[in-house]
Amino acid sequence: METSKKESCGLFGAFGKPETEDMATTIYTGLFSIQHRGQEGAGIVVSDGTKFRRCKDIGLVSNVFPEKKLNELIGHFGIGHVRYSTTGSNCIKNVQPLILEHDNEIWAIAHNGNLINAHALRQSYQKAGSIFQTTTDSEVLFPLLTNPKFKHQLCQERVINALNKLKGAFSFLIMTKNCVMAARDPNGFKPLAIGKKDNVWFFASETCAFIQIGADYIRDVEPGEIVIADNTGLHSIPAKTPSSRISQCIFEYIYFARPDSKIFTKNVHSVRLIHGKLLAKEHPVEADIVMPVPSSGDSAALGYSRESNIPLDYGFIRNHYIGRTFIMPETNTRETSVDMKILANPEVIKGKRIIVVDDSIVRGNTSRHRVSHLRRLGAKEVHMRIACSPITHPCFYGIDFPTKNELIAGIHDINTIRKLIEVDSLGYLSLNGMLSPFDDPENFCTACFNGDYPVPVDSTEINGKYTLESNQLIEI
Amino acid sequence: METSKKESCGLFGAFGKPETEDMATTIYTGLFSIQHRGQEGAGIVVSDGTKFRRCKDIGLVSNVFPEKKLNELIGHFGIGHVRYSTTGSNCIKNVQPLILEHDNEIWAIAHNGNLINAHALRQSYQKAGSIFQTTTDSEVLFPLLTNPKFKHQLCQERVINALNKLKGAFSFLIMTKNCVMAARDPNGFKPLAIGKKDNVWFFASETCAFIQIGADYIRDVEPGEIVIADNTGLHSIPAKTPSSRISQCIFEYIYFARPDSKIFTKNVHSVRLIHGKLLAKEHPVEADIVMPVPSSGDSAALGYSRESNIPLDYGFIRNHYIGRTFIMPETNTRETSVDMKILANPEVIKGKRIIVVDDSIVRGNTSRHRVSHLRRLGAKEVHMRIACSPITHPCFYGIDFPTKNELIAGIHDINTIRKLIEVDSLGYLSLNGMLSPFDDPENFCTACFNGDYPVPVDSTEINGKYTLESNQLIEI
Amino acid sequence: METSKKESCGLFGAFGKPETEDMATTIYTGLFSIQHRGQEGAGIVVSDGTKFRRCKDIGLVSNVFPEKKLNELIGHFGIGHVRYSTTGSNCIKNVQPLILEHDNEIWAIAHNGNLINAHALRQSYQKAGSIFQTTTDSEVLFPLLTNPKFKHQLCQERVINALNKLKGAFSFLIMTKNCVMAARDPNGFKPLAIGKKDNVWFFASETCAFIQIGADYIRDVEPGEIVIADNTGLHSIPAKTPSSRISQCIFEYIYFARPDSKIFTKNVHSVRLIHGKLLAKEHPVEADIVMPVPSSGDSAALGYSRESNIPLDYGFIRNHYIGRTFIMPETNTRETSVDMKILANPEVIKGKRIIVVDDSIVRGNTSRHRVSHLRRLGAKEVHMRIACSPITHPCFYGIDFPTKNELIAGIHDINTIRKLIEVDSLGYLSLNGMLSPFDDPENFCTACFNGDYPVPVDSTEINGKYTLESNQLIEI
Amino acid sequence: METSKKESCGLFGAFGKPETEDMATTIYTGLFSIQHRGQEGAGIVVSDGTKFRRCKDIGLVSNVFPEKKLNELIGHFGIGHVRYSTTGSNCIKNVQPLILEHDNEIWAIAHNGNLINAHALRQSYQKAGSIFQTTTDSEVLFPLLTNPKFKHQLCQERVINALNKLKGAFSFLIMTKNCVMAARDPNGFKPLAIGKKDNVWFFASETCAFIQIGADYIRDVEPGEIVIADNTGLHSIPAKTPSSRISQCIFEYIYFARPDSKIFTKNVHSVRLIHGKLLAKEHPVEADIVMPVPSSGDSAALGYSRESNIPLDYGFIRNHYIGRTFIMPETNTRETSVDMKILANPEVIKGKRIIVVDDSIVRGNTSRHRVSHLRRLGAKEVHMRIACSPITHPCFYGIDFPTKNELIAGIHDINTIRKLIEVDSLGYLSLNGMLSPFDDPENFCTACFNGDYPVPVDSTEINGKYTLESNQLIEI
Repeated sequence: METSKKESCGLFGAFGKPETEDMATTIYTGLFSIQHRGQEGAGIVVSDGTKFRRCKDIGLVSNVFPEKKLNELIGHFGIGHVRYSTTGSNCIKNVQPLILEHDNEIWAIAHNGNLINAHALRQSYQKAGSIFQTTTDSEVLFPLLTNPKFKHQLCQERVINALNKLKGAFSFLIMTKNCVMAARDPNGFKPLAIGKKDNVWFFASETCAFIQIGADYIRDVEPGEIVIADNTGLHSIPAKTPSSRISQCIFEYIYFARPDSKIFTKNVHSVRLIHGKLLAKEHPVEADIVMPVPSSGDSAALGYSRESNIPLDYGFIRNHYIGRTFIMPETNTRETSVDMKILANPEVIKGKRIIVVDDSIVRGNTSRHRVSHLRRLGAKEVHMRIACSPITHPCFYGIDFPTKNELIAGIHDINTIRKLIEVDSLGYLSLNGMLSPFDDPENFCTACFNGDYPVPVDSTEINGKYTLESNQLIEI
Repeated sequence: METSKKESCGLFGAFGKPETEDMATTIYTGLFSIQHRGQEGAGIVVSDGTKFRRCKDIGLVSNVFPEKKLNELIGHFGIGHVRYSTTGSNCIKNVQPLILEHDNEIWAIAHNGNLINAHALRQSYQKAGSIFQTTTDSEVLFPLLTNPKFKHQLCQERVINALNKLKGAFSFLIMTKNCVMAARDPNGFKPLAIGKKDNVWFFASETCAFIQIGADYIRDVEPGEIVIADNTGLHSIPAKTPSSRISQCIFEYIYFARPDSKIFTKNVHSVRLIHGKLLAKEHPVEADIVMPVPSSGDSAALGYSRESNIPLDYGFIRNHYIGRTFIMPETNTRETSVDMKILANPEVIKGKRIIVVDDSIVRGNTSRHRVSHLRRLGAKEVHMRIACSPITHPCFYGIDFPTKNELIAGIHDINTIRKLIEVDSLGYLSLNGMLSPFDDPENFCTACFNGDYPVPVDSTEINGKYTLESNQLIEI
Repeated sequence: METSKKESCGLFGAFGKPETEDMATTIYTGLFSIQHRGQEGAGIVVSDGTKFRRCKDIGLVSNVFPEKKLNELIGHFGIGHVRYSTTGSNCIKNVQPLILEHDNEIWAIAHNGNLINAHALRQSYQKAGSIFQTTTDSEVLFPLLTNPKFKHQLCQERVINALNKLKGAFSFLIMTKNCVMAARDPNGFKPLAIGKKDNVWFFASETCAFIQIGADYIRDVEPGEIVIADNTGLHSIPAKTPSSRISQCIFEYIYFARPDSKIFTKNVHSVRLIHGKLLAKEHPVEADIVMPVPSSGDSAALGYSRESNIPLDYGFIRNHYIGRTFIMPETNTRETSVDMKILANPEVIKGKRIIVVDDSIVRGNTSRHRVSHLRRLGAKEVHMRIACSPITHPCFYGIDFPTKNELIAGIHDINTIRKLIEVDSLGYLSLNGMLSPFDDPENFCTACFNGDYPVPVDSTEINGKYTLESNQLIEI
Repeated sequence: METSKKESCGLFGAFGKPETEDMATTIYTGLFSIQHRGQEGAGIVVSDGTKFRRCKDIGLVSNVFPEKKLNELIGHFGIGHVRYSTTGSNCIKNVQPLILEHDNEIWAIAHNGNLINAHALRQSYQKAGSIFQTTTDSEVLFPLLTNPKFKHQLCQERVINALNKLKGAFSFLIMTKNCVMAARDPNGFKPLAIGKKDNVWFFASETCAFIQIGADYIRDVEPGEIVIADNTGLHSIPAKTPSSRISQCIFEYIYFARPDSKIFTKNVHSVRLIHGKLLAKEHPVEADIVMPVPSSGDSAALGYSRESNIPLDYGFIRNHYIGRTFIMPETNTRETSVDMKILANPEVIKGKRIIVVDDSIVRGNTSRHRVSHLRRLGAKEVHMRIACSPITHPCFYGIDFPTKNELIAGIHDINTIRKLIEVDSLGYLSLNGMLSPFDDPENFCTACFNGDYPVPVDSTEINGKYTLESNQLIEI
């Protein structure tokens, strides 16, 4: 899949015993393991119950928190966030967790997902006098939390009321001076899991974070549920009005999550292995080798190879050293347009009939380049197998797909796509195939594959999605 | 005077012709000349009538705006600010101009002064749901400007209404997509002057900025007046309810302003020369030389020398290379406690009866160290002459004096002070003397010298002054 | 294999047509593809035939050359270097290419390998008055090149004479104002290949660099040969006195080189596949899955799986985001000592009999930690298979292995190692097995496996290896 | 005087008791006080008798040594240097002290002055095989110190032999593991003074450094003398062959030195006062005020005013905030060509007949701009008085004056200069006047005023001065 596909964020939270002062290191370790969910900014807020301490910046987890700063982040509970920013390098104000200080209260929030009514809520609150400082949809939670009408309410009641106003996809970590709250929207679009180790409670977008810190995966935060970790332990506010429909993001399995994570209780690698096998059954072809596009195609390629008995081989090599400031030299002609990130091994390619297994196709450009590179190196045949269905519709719940017109499968049928990317054959996994590993296939959102949007999106709100970004201010 | 004395800020604004794209360079040049008013942060916002472009950061003007950034600040009007931050190095969010984006409007504001009802206003607005993002008193202008009750009003009406709610000292530059507005509080505490060059209008805290850019000084913004520069020229909204009392800050002449500036229409160097002469009349003494504490005592020492006919000499040498990261080596014993910034020349000092002329004394420590250094170098007598009256009261209008108990003249009489700083004689300029250069002596604030506060300060608000700073959040 | 294993360097050179001004971009692209050979420093020198332009710094290729600098590196020929520094972060003086300016001549050199007589040569030259500025062994080439005795000689004669004085392992790129020279020591320890594209000649440590830039791999620089690229084309100075023995570094195949490179004309991935198959033949075991330690064990594990018919699976997941400033949180107890770089997937591990395939074992600590992690996650059996023989001896030709006493196989037999790393069985590939993919097995250095050093190392020189580093000067 | 006038360097050294670990802080303080002698780079080397620790960089003393680094500079003796670099910002290799490591010896050197035979020595040593790493003339000391012929000699004998080979102007601080040596050339061009405090010995280019650290000024290092501070105290190696002529740089009094320093035993401020008085006698004129160009004209203007009884006034105000990255906005027309560093006060200028006292004129551009600015502000008459004679010849001993053709007095007579800078009258101090404050006027170099070069400069060497800079290598 192309590198242009974007994920909204990753979350990690923890609530420990008061005598633990260095919870920030554990949050750092957890964030590090879910770095793949957002590589452009990271932040941690911790508290000792009195003060909040925050460090956040543009950049990777390993750069944002030098040891000196990590040591100053004193506190026994806190939340962290990794972010895929959509607005360039100087947007530090949008890096989360966001802090809300108001009338002697202090809150920190970290958000994964996309609120489809953020624009409408902002407009309405602005008309009532509210001022917004970031261009994130997440900030709309602030006026909801500080609404004077609910001033008399307890924190958690205000959180419940606030979340009830939101529409769309969200997993939230919300922190006060007393607790860390974890909440998922009623549809359960985005994952959020609960972990435990030595009576410390953790929340994470992916369970690989629990493996990384040596904690046990207990269960998921349920759709619509709010789970609160505080000095007295873990408390649940169950979903009051359960959603008429659970619609978990199936794309977490296809691309976003790490293979060693359980998402919605199911291991990602295992799902991908099954997808690969089904792909081999649905789209068999005679060939010499099966090779994955690393790393997101690895598991499905293994499944394809096992099912087809065509040997796996490693024809693509991934370069591990692409940094943030990496300059992509301009390539003038098609002959030299070699990908800097993934290079093909001529020894493996030459004279072979090759099945390339990739996780998905968005615009198609990258696939076309890779295929052309394989042909230059002497591939006899190139067969492309995609471990998901054609992506035909944009996502409004947090995946930054382009518009329908830019999606290659949004405007072309499979045979045309095959010609465009110049492969000898092309096979996509069927929708049924994608859902077959699950006992509850009706509980997944498949909108990007079939346009069945579980939460209706009206045109104003869709436009709203794109107009939160200021077009009035340029920070230099 | 000690280096610990702080000034609130300096302002510079400009409105040029649409074809001028590089007004930022002029604003930069103007800010550079008033750098002495705030050395910890600087910012510029410019506009081409469509977009705002902002650059701001911690640091000196010469560091905050590298050429590359200055070139990107495209626009024909804008405002700039130099700031004395009171909250440490990482407080970039408090560096002005502040930006307010709201409901398709965009504003930029820059403020010099101190609002004594900022805390009360913030509390009241927070109770109504407002959220504040900085810990500056200036931000309180935002909810006043966006108040939905006045939404139907024109920009400038809303500015008038907003400013009417403020109490205390302020000179404001306020910028919209159409204009730059300059406003002074009805008491006229802080200076703000109007300049002109080739049909471009300028605003500046000090007129030296006009000399620097080659513009003419036209007049001051009047107390209570709002002056608007836009595409059609310069417009005035005169003070509607003139203050019962004008109370301009006399300390601008004593210390803050550059000698080549006119403040409240009167040249600073000329006032200081008179002060020096009066000081010689009020406190004559036999001596060999008169020497200034550079640079703020230079003009007064010259006046003293002229009046007394005691020769001027340069016994103190100022080191020009003290930068922001300068490390002040710890000095273990009194013998070595030599000031790094101002060093004495033994050749001038030895065996002399010396009159030292300084602009003021705040805590007294620095004076004591200097005197002791002179004695070690062989001064026969040291007579201290201070070109203002004893500072006995704190200021609530923008000077960051310490509390009454920390002011040496707040708790000691002159004879005791003389003993504490170990001089042979000590003379302060009388209050009448300080005011004598002016035709309208009643139009000055002398609260720090006699406790006569022109705008009443109640105890809540005074405390409020100190609690805007968050004690809940530490940014690392 | 542990991350502590170090490689000396990677080289890339190019000589293009005078009208090509941006050869630096091609060198940058080439260096990027061999980044794995040295991750702590990088440098490029280019020339237009008149001036040399150099940029070098501590850090990764993607950080050392921001676009602005790359654009200033104007020239049509040049050389580049990636370095594994052994002396901490502030050693920029040791980052290559080194520049020698002398008597209107200018040279640049880049070196891969280790000169075992560097210490002796330095001592002798120092006694004669020479001054050394770096602590690299490479600098010893400078006085050899500038020796007044050979002043009358042509550049290339002086290079021949100079290289003849060196003992040990070296591949050199040497640049003058007219040419780029590539040289390998007579034993041919280190690789250096020749590439071509559109009449531009290239040199690279690994052929993957040619794939990356779209060039063809022509042949290797031969042991003892000097190849010169200049305006008139490519010229060879064949090895005059061929070494009595070719001894190419077999460890290039085991660990250093990228699988898509040809090293000494043979593809690395293909060799590793064979190694994996032989390993399965030599050390079969009943198990449920074969899993590689990524990435260096990937190819051998695939070979093992193919030969044994035991399914391959991905039980280890590599985290791609470990940066230079990454903080490794201290792990207090064995329970939490989880590797940050490679994490295991419990879903794959639990209840399985596992064959782990790794490229090599040096000290053994990392292997022990990984095995223990697998057992915690529920592995039923863990069998370790190593795709090389036990490393029993240090290397003096460029691999930074520890001393014999620190090498686990330097002091323990295989059964003891098995117990120490707590595996159910342990199998190393035999020396014959390692050499079996090659037609000329006698042409490889196997000193680290059997102590048969092809170039004798006397004890003085060995000590010398460690004393080039200054113990007199600390740069802060 | 123009800001383009350059000084070579400033030196500070110290040798304390072994139990003192933080001598670096004292050296830092000393260097800070002589920062005016070199503002582009700074370095300190200290030693505990075993190791050398060095920190150096481009920039001001207050930036180069952050507290963390200063604390790591552990040692009880050391030397420091401030440098005026002539080759752009990336020339860190030229920042001193330079380190020479050779054959288990380690040396550090810091140099003030210019060696007129550096080029010839470099050529000769290069022919013999020596390699140079910097483009400083100072480095030529290295092969002189390591000459194998003198290997058997003691350190100080080698230093004596090496210095004997040098021609031109030098004050050196040379440090070994046992001592700090201070040496002046036989002509005594450049100052170097000895200080003492609590049995710690100090060396400094100017005695103001002793005032700054609270030490006593003992005496100067004599021309030709070498003074050694070590564990046993202070030792002198008197000048063996005294120079036929002492020729101390008179320009130290005119411009370079701080007024509170004693240079060649005489206080700078006192000399300038006399110069100002003599200037008034030699070139009287009727006027309203005398005003200095700050700061270098301050003392002479005071003398002029005292002698002439024309009142002193401060018409120029110096801006203290010009940093390294300061952008000088381009000024299109003469009207706006206002100096950013020194601004005139219209209140003082308007309608006045003014005597401007400056220290010197080099090219004349700056003077012309200043005069024009005064006229625009309404000056009635402008009379320029220069406190030295016309500068007619370049300096080869360390002042970076331009060539004779660029010196305004090199090609024009005084009346022409008067017209070019557009003043009503112009008076230079006579050569006799300049020398009259001294008992030994024959012991000064006045070459830049009359072309009488005390050390002959042949044309090769003069050219050599300019060709040490590489024109072959550009560091990016």
